[in-house]
Amino acid sequence: MLKANPERLWDALMELGRIGETPGGGARRLAMDALDGEARALLRRWLAELGLAVATDRLGNIFARREGTDPDADPVVIGSHLDTVPTGGKFDGAYGVIAALEVLRRMADEGLATRASVELVIWNNEEGARFSPMTMGSSVFVGDVALDFALSRTDPDGVTVAQALEALDEPGETVAVGGRPFAAYLETHIEQGPLLKEAGKDIGVVTGSFRARYFVASVTGEAGHVGPTLMEQRHDALAAAAELILGIEAIGRARGRDGRSNAPHLELSPNVRGVIPNAVRVSCDIRHVEAGPLAEMEAELRALCERVAAERGVRVELAQYFAFGPIDCHAAMNDMVRGCCEELGLSTMDILAVASHDAIPIMGYCPTALFFIPSETGISHNEAEWSTPEQCAAGADVLLAATLRAAG
Amino acid sequence: MLKANPERLWDALMELGRIGETPGGGARRLAMDALDGEARALLRRWLAELGLAVATDRLGNIFARREGTDPDADPVVIGSHLDTVPTGGKFDGAYGVIAALEVLRRMADEGLATRASVELVIWNNEEGARFSPMTMGSSVFVGDVALDFALSRTDPDGVTVAQALEALDEPGETVAVGGRPFAAYLETHIEQGPLLKEAGKDIGVVTGSFRARYFVASVTGEAGHVGPTLMEQRHDALAAAAELILGIEAIGRARGRDGRSNAPHLELSPNVRGVIPNAVRVSCDIRHVEAGPLAEMEAELRALCERVAAERGVRVELAQYFAFGPIDCHAAMNDMVRGCCEELGLSTMDILAVASHDAIPIMGYCPTALFFIPSETGISHNEAEWSTPEQCAAGADVLLAATLRAAG
Repeated sequence: MLKANPERLWDALMELGRIGETPGGGARRLAMDALDGEARALLRRWLAELGLAVATDRLGNIFARREGTDPDADPVVIGSHLDTVPTGGKFDGAYGVIAALEVLRRMADEGLATRASVELVIWNNEEGARFSPMTMGSSVFVGDVALDFALSRTDPDGVTVAQALEALDEPGETVAVGGRPFAAYLETHIEQGPLLKEAGKDIGVVTGSFRARYFVASVTGEAGHVGPTLMEQRHDALAAAAELILGIEAIGRARGRDGRSNAPHLELSPNVRGVIPNAVRVSCDIRHVEAGPLAEMEAELRALCERVAAERGVRVELAQYFAFGPIDCHAAMNDMVRGCCEELGLSTMDILAVASHDAIPIMGYCPTALFFIPSETGISHNEAEWSTPEQCAAGADVLLAATLRAAG
Repeated sequence: MLKANPERLWDALMELGRIGETPGGGARRLAMDALDGEARALLRRWLAELGLAVATDRLGNIFARREGTDPDADPVVIGSHLDTVPTGGKFDGAYGVIAALEVLRRMADEGLATRASVELVIWNNEEGARFSPMTMGSSVFVGDVALDFALSRTDPDGVTVAQALEALDEPGETVAVGGRPFAAYLETHIEQGPLLKEAGKDIGVVTGSFRARYFVASVTGEAGHVGPTLMEQRHDALAAAAELILGIEAIGRARGRDGRSNAPHLELSPNVRGVIPNAVRVSCDIRHVEAGPLAEMEAELRALCERVAAERGVRVELAQYFAFGPIDCHAAMNDMVRGCCEELGLSTMDILAVASHDAIPIMGYCPTALFFIPSETGISHNEAEWSTPEQCAAGADVLLAATLRAAG
C-alpha cells in the first residue's frame, strides 16, 4: 500500500516551522503578516517544483491543482492553514498543509493518474487571531461570510484584510472566491487536547462537535482618578469584568469534560495606571456537547451579566457574534477514512471537534472528512504543541489513501 | 486687594480646553503628543505676549521668567502641567497653569515690581499615562529620577521620551534640568474628589498625604487552545488576574474613606480569542492615611498573590515600582496661604493629597504650598470633571496674593 515518505514529510514540517520560530520552539505567523507571507511563499515554491499551477483567490486562499484524467470531474481538495496564534506551535494547521503536500509529492513520485483532479488548499486566516472572525477563508469560500465584510475586517492597528492582502503583493493569478463545486474535502490536523493520547489511539475521526456560542460582554462603568475617588463612589468597569471572567470560568467548570467556557480576550479603556477603568469588552464563549446544557449555560451567563450590572451600578450588554455546532459530519466519508486506517493497521476512535476548523464550514459544501493525529503534550495554541514523526507520518498515510480513493 | 480677572482666566482655560477636546467635553492630550504640543505652543504664545523669556529644559519642562528687582534672589515658581489622561477633563493640571498665567498677566496689567523673579513652570508628563513614571518632569528636576532613565522610558508603541521630545521640535533655548534653587513653589489644582464640595469650603490646603505603594503583579499561567483544552487542565493567567483584581478591590473597600486600592491597568498575552491567556501583568496600588494599616494592606496583597498562585498552579510575582507619601508639607507656607484666603474672605479646610502632584516632589526641594479648589462633580480623570468660573477665580486670587507675598 502506498505510503508517505516520513522523513520528507517531517523535514518539510520542520523547515516551515523555522519561519516565525519562537524562543520556546513554537511558531508565530499571524494571518497575512510578513512571516505568514514567507510561509506562503515557501509553499508556493514547493508546489511550483511539482509543476502545479498555483492560483490565489481574492481572499488570499491558495489553490494548487494536479489535473485528473476526467476534465468534467470536480476536484478532491486537501489542505489546512498556515497562520498561527501569537504564541502557537509548529503543528496546528501547518501539519495539514504539509501532509497534503506530501500526498501530491508522493503522487508525483509514482506518476499516479487520478480520474478527478486533486487540489491542495491553504485557507487564509483560520485562527482569527489578527482578524476576526476565524475560519475566514473557508467561510467566505462556502458563502457563510460575505467577501466584502471579510475584506473590511481590521486588526488591532486598524489595517484591513484588503490592505493586508495588498501588502503581501503575491505573484500569480487572482481568482474569484468560491463558486465552484468540490467532489470532496479532506483535512488532517493535530488533536488540540489529550484524548487520543489518553486512549492510545492513532487516528481520531471527527464524528460531531461541541456546540459553541461566542459573545462580547461590554461593560460600561465610570472613569475617575484612582486616588481621590472614594471606594464607595466607584463604578469600576474592570472589577466588574473580573467578576464576569470568574463567573464564566465557573459555568464551564461545572460541566466536567462535556463543557468549556472562556473569557480570553479583553479590550480595556483607558488602561492607564491613573484612571479607574470606564469600559471593558470581554470576549467570551461557552461550549457543550448537548443543546440542553448549552442553553442552561447561556442562561447562567445572562444572569451573571445582570447580577454584576445591578450590584455594581454598571451597564453590561451581552451580544452574540459567532456560533458553531452542531456539525453535520459525513458518515460515508468517515467510513472511508476508517477503512483506510484499517488497511494501514492504524487504530481509530471517534472524537468531537471542540473548536472550529476549516473543514467545518466546508461540511455544508461538499462531502468532507476531518481526522486528527495525537498530540504528545495534549496541548495546542502553545509553543509546546508536539506530535512525533511517526504520528505525523500515520496521518499523511491516511490522507494519501483517502485522497486516492476519493479521486478514483 | 489685587484680584485675578475672572473672565480672562475662564476664557483662557476654555480656549486651552479646545485643544484635544473630547466628545464628552473633556480633554485628551497625552504627554508630548501632537495635541500636547499644540497646548504648549499656545502657552508659549501667551507668555511671549507678556514679553517673557521662555526656556525649555532637556526633559521638556517649560519656564517663563518675569525678572525681579533683586538679581541675587531665587525665583518664586508657580505652575502645574498641561498633559492629561486619555479621557481626562479640562481642569486637571491645565487650571494650575492658567491660574499662574493669570497671575503674570495681572502683574503685567499693574506694572508690579517684585523683589524676587516670578517664574511660570509647565511640568512635562505629570500624568504618566503615556510614559511611566508619573510626575516625571518635576521628579527629574529635583533629582528624584535620573534624566537618562526618564529620557529612555517608552510608550506602548516603543517611542522613547527622548524621541517624543525631538518630534515636538520646539523653538527657543534648551537648558539643563534642575541645578538651580527656587525661593518657593506654589501650585493650585482642582480637587480630584468630593470633599471640598461636601464640606462647602472654598479652598483645600494640602497638609499631608496618603501613603501609596505601587506594584506590578506578574501572573504566568499556561497557554492552550480555548476549545479542546479540558477545564481541569488549565492554568488560565487571566482568570488568576481576575481573582487578584477583585481581591485588591476588597483590600481598599475594607478601609472606608481612609483607604484606596486599584488595579486599573493590564498587559495581556496573547489576548486573542482562541488562546487561554498565558501571562497577565496587573498594575496595582494600595493607599492609606496611616502607616500601620498600609502595611497590613500590603501583607494582605502578598497573601492574596500567594493564595492565587497556589490554588491555580500559576506563578505570581509582585514587584513594587513606585511609592509616595507621607509628604513633608511646609507649615509656614500653608499658614501664608491660609492668611491670603482669610484676607480674600475665602473659607479653607485642611486636606490630604491622595495622589501625587508636581508639588509633591518639589516639597523636598524648596518651601512649597499646594492648594485645591472644589470639584463640582466630585470626580476627575473623567470628561465630566468641572469647577465653576467663580471657584477658578477664587483659586487664582489666592495664587496671586501668595505669589506677591512670597516674591516680596
